[in-house]
Amino acid sequence: MSITLYRATVPVYLRGLTVMADYIKKARAHCEAQSVDPDSILKAKLAPDMLDFVAQVQRVSDTAKFAVARLTGVESPKFEDTETTFDQLLARIANTEAFIAGILEDRFEGAESRQITLKFKTQQTTMDAVDYLFKFGLPNFYFHVTTTHGILRAQGVDVGKKDYLGPYEMENI
Amino acid sequence: MSITLYRATVPVYLRGLTVMADYIKKARAHCEAQSVDPDSILKAKLAPDMLDFVAQVQRVSDTAKFAVARLTGVESPKFEDTETTFDQLLARIANTEAFIAGILEDRFEGAESRQITLKFKTQQTTMDAVDYLFKFGLPNFYFHVTTTHGILRAQGVDVGKKDYLGPYEMENI
Repeated sequence: MSITLYRATVPVYLRGLTVMADYIKKARAHCEAQSVDPDSILKAKLAPDMLDFVAQVQRVSDTAKFAVARLTGVESPKFEDTETTFDQLLARIANTEAFIAGILEDRFEGAESRQITLKFKTQQTTMDAVDYLFKFGLPNFYFHVTTTHGILRAQGVDVGKKDYLGPYEMENI
Repeated sequence: MSITLYRATVPVYLRGLTVMADYIKKARAHCEAQSVDPDSILKAKLAPDMLDFVAQVQRVSDTAKFAVARLTGVESPKFEDTETTFDQLLARIANTEAFIAGILEDRFEGAESRQITLKFKTQQTTMDAVDYLFKFGLPNFYFHVTTTHGILRAQGVDVGKKDYLGPYEMENI
C-alpha cells in the first residue's frame, strides 16, 4: 500500500475544515459568553501587516478547494470573500466541505502525472503534482489553519492543541 | 506513480527544517541590527500559556525526528531541550537535519503496514502509518513551524510567507 493523492488531500482537507468550523464556533461562543465584540476577533491579526481572522478562514477555504481542483481538473466554486460574521464564515467552510466531499476518488486517476503551474505577479513556477502537494498544497493549508489558531489563542479564546489536531480514537491506559 | 512514505516525510521535513534555520538566522540578525535583547524573541509567545519561540523550535525538531523514527523503526537521537540561544537552536536544527537526511529510502520498506501508537498521560491511540502521517506527523510539524513564524511576525522580524513556503524554481512571465 502506498499513499494516493486522494488520501493525501480530500480526507486531510475535510479534517482540517472540521477543525476550522470548530474554531469559528468557539470564537462565536466566546463572544457571546464574554460579551466581546465579534469584530475584535474577526478583524484580529498576529501582526499589523498580516491577514486577519476572516481572511485566514478564506485562505484555508481557497487553499483546500484550489488544491483539489488543480489535482483533478474539476472546476472549483467561486467564493467572493465577502464574509463579515462568524455565521457567514461557517457557511463558507460548509460550502468548501461540500465541494471537496463531492470529489470522488476516481477523479484523481492520473493526477500524479499532472503538472501544476502557480502564477504570481511577474513569475510562475511549474511542478509535478506530488511536489505541488508537499511544497504548497499542504503547507499553505496548515499555515492558515495554524494562524487562525494562533489568532484565537492570542485573543483568549479557549482553543488548544487537541482542537487543532482533531479527534483520535483513544483508549485508556 | 503514487506517493511513498519516504517522499511524504524525509524531503518534507528537511524542507521545513531549512525554513526553520532561516527563521532563526533572521531572528538573530534582527536582534543584532535593531539592538534587541535576544531573549525578547527567544521567550516570546503568542499567548501566555503557549510555548515560547525556543520551545516551538524544539517541538519542530521533535515532531520531525519522531515521525521518521516511528515510521522506520530507526531510533532517534535524544535532544535535551536545553537551548537558550539562537546559535544553540541552529545546532539543534542541524542535528535534526543530519538524523533525518541519514535515513535512506530503503529504511521505509514496509512502513505502510506499521501501526503507530501515540501515548498521552492516561490514554493512547493506535493508527496505521498513513493515518499517523496525516493526522499527526505532518499537521503537528506545520503547527510548530507556523507558530514560530507567527511569533517572529508578532515581534516585528522581517519574515514573510515566501520564507515559510521555501524557494521554488521560478520563471518570469
